[in-house]
Amino acid sequence: MNLLVTLDSKYIQPLKVMLFSLFTNNPAENFHIYLMHSSIKDNEIADIERFVNSYNQKLSVIKIADSYFQNAPVILHYTKEMYYRLLAYKFLPKNMDRILYLDPDILVINPIRELYETELDGYLYAAAFHNILAVKKINRIRLYPYKIDAYFNSGVLLMNLELQRKLVDEEVIYSFVEKNRAKLILPDQDILNTLYSKQIKCLDEKLYNYDTRYYNYYKIITNNACDMDYVMTNTVILHFCGKKKPWQKGYSGKFYSLYKHYEKKAIS
Amino acid sequence: MNLLVTLDSKYIQPLKVMLFSLFTNNPAENFHIYLMHSSIKDNEIADIERFVNSYNQKLSVIKIADSYFQNAPVILHYTKEMYYRLLAYKFLPKNMDRILYLDPDILVINPIRELYETELDGYLYAAAFHNILAVKKINRIRLYPYKIDAYFNSGVLLMNLELQRKLVDEEVIYSFVEKNRAKLILPDQDILNTLYSKQIKCLDEKLYNYDTRYYNYYKIITNNACDMDYVMTNTVILHFCGKKKPWQKGYSGKFYSLYKHYEKKAIS
Repeated sequence: MNLLVTLDSKYIQPLKVMLFSLFTNNPAENFHIYLMHSSIKDNEIADIERFVNSYNQKLSVIKIADSYFQNAPVILHYTKEMYYRLLAYKFLPKNMDRILYLDPDILVINPIRELYETELDGYLYAAAFHNILAVKKINRIRLYPYKIDAYFNSGVLLMNLELQRKLVDEEVIYSFVEKNRAKLILPDQDILNTLYSKQIKCLDEKLYNYDTRYYNYYKIITNNACDMDYVMTNTVILHFCGKKKPWQKGYSGKFYSLYKHYEKKAIS
Repeated sequence: MNLLVTLDSKYIQPLKVMLFSLFTNNPAENFHIYLMHSSIKDNEIADIERFVNSYNQKLSVIKIADSYFQNAPVILHYTKEMYYRLLAYKFLPKNMDRILYLDPDILVINPIRELYETELDGYLYAAAFHNILAVKKINRIRLYPYKIDAYFNSGVLLMNLELQRKLVDEEVIYSFVEKNRAKLILPDQDILNTLYSKQIKCLDEKLYNYDTRYYNYYKIITNNACDMDYVMTNTVILHFCGKKKPWQKGYSGKFYSLYKHYEKKAIS
């Protein structure tokens, strides 16, 4: 399976925890990890490579030259890395048909193959949207006049690279960013949702992009079906969304002990 | 390492979770599990044995005949199993010098060898006491006139079998129970604390018998040193004390997600 990650040095530890959880809960699978970056140091790359290889998995590093996104508009507080996810198809092997992008603030706690093999006929992506009412409403207003039916989370993104090569256009993205600078909060996610949301296949967030802040919410909307038992048996991806991260001091949350246990196993 | 467990059919699932956590976090160790029981069915025993053997570990079953504790006094709501832990030395191999008793409502999340090799010179047991002030005070009043310096928890009990053969007397225990029927709440633990507390070596509860109900308490009394990071790195035994158990519906607690994750891995 092909996996894409894009990050800077600050996220190397979380990346290792994510990969460790992926590897240990998918022991019979072979993964090829593609790491896109612009600023990670050579010794850090070597460290990541050793880590990946120690689980008999493969790492390919794609370093993006500073010059590449020279003409791309940037937005305050955001770097050009925001384009990596959307334009990854340009840097990946030309014969690759699909890849699964994963954020590093994730734990993979169950087999991932079914997600990876999701049928993508005619879709550019598969992703989950976080079905919190308030979030949906705010985004609909914020991104008006673009019609947003669902606001997809871009932290877990299965990519149809073949179709992207035909349909995703760098210049369209740049001009969208130029035109909507003031409105964009999470630029890559906003671009995805305004330009491509009709071509995103919807995944069940409870299985593939479970927002760890909303344990009680998921339980309520499913009449208690989505309890801890359900999550541990069925959920594949726990996503530690939000500003507070489980590797930071003072974090608390329903999945804190689980995260820290994986962190300890991954890093010690 | 020799491990002792005593249980009835209701605790087979938790036992498997406990053993799974022990085995996976001590991958290079050989364990010999001694299971003392009176009522577990043959097919259940066979199932436990298959489970233990599947991790290349050894199980010995010690079935206690109903007739054995015929003359022992029983207390309302408690069965004769309450004596198993205290008198285990009578049923274990005569040449065994030590064994570690573990409750089934436990997760072992780190290497256990250091606990197992605790120096026991002159002590009958090693155990941790739960240092909650209110608990200590209540027990001191309840068990008066017996002097209780510390109220040890009997859920994790390292046993000096050699010394027990010399010093622990069945008849002394029985007559203590006869005399104090009305006072005893957790009989085996009460017996341990009133008759033998001077001969119990004290273990650090934060390492070897961490009461999962008291995460915030442990943090406060250590000025935040005993946070989730500390627990995952140092704590060996998480003990899910109290009436609410993590395998029951409606449980919640800091270590719920971790427990359920282990449960799923152990049982599916």
